[in-house]
Amino acid sequence: MSATRLDRVFHERGRLAICSALVTQAAGMSFTRLQEVCGLTDGNLNRHLHALAEEQIVESERRTGNGRPQTMVRITETGRARFVEYIDALEAIVREVQRAAKRTPSPARAVPSAGTSQ
Amino acid sequence: MSATRLDRVFHERGRLAICSALVTQAAGMSFTRLQEVCGLTDGNLNRHLHALAEEQIVESERRTGNGRPQTMVRITETGRARFVEYIDALEAIVREVQRAAKRTPSPARAVPSAGTSQ
Repeated sequence: MSATRLDRVFHERGRLAICSALVTQAAGMSFTRLQEVCGLTDGNLNRHLHALAEEQIVESERRTGNGRPQTMVRITETGRARFVEYIDALEAIVREVQRAAKRTPSPARAVPSAGTSQ
Repeated sequence: MSATRLDRVFHERGRLAICSALVTQAAGMSFTRLQEVCGLTDGNLNRHLHALAEEQIVESERRTGNGRPQTMVRITETGRARFVEYIDALEAIVREVQRAAKRTPSPARAVPSAGTSQ
């Protein structure tokens, strides 16, 4: 069953949101912007970024210049490749389920009464 | 960000495997078969089925007849509709990411040196 082989590090809604956002922004995103886009709390975003950084999926950098210092986050090249692989695995599952759902009649019609399976 | 709106009850690899299997089998599957197909332990499958049953996504029935009694599990009609909705939401994210990944250059090329963001 392909679902159980999905890359565990990405299969969490917050991390999926983070990586989906970062993959569109090669130059990276500020922590604040990422937080807005993903709708995550400070603590949650921090926690997920740590987990992703531990696996070399994202990297952060503190930038100072004019105005307030900013933490910039970006997806690494290997992180990107691994995320795209995860997304492709997800796509395979989506297709499989959609095909099956079309083929199979709804359960109410298929099981008119208990105990009548062939 | 659409990822954070994914139906939480399905966004777990084991549950995704369970529902993907059940959606192909309108007549239901035995607990034992489901366990084999999903590669889950007894305890894990039980735990997930309880959580899914609490939300009326699956239902179980103990069948006795010739031979050993069997627990049959099937997805309900509302569970099926809700799962298909989740899968469609997943599809939207997959498409979005795949489009973005094609459009965006790899991070190594896009950020030649730190601090040069526009």
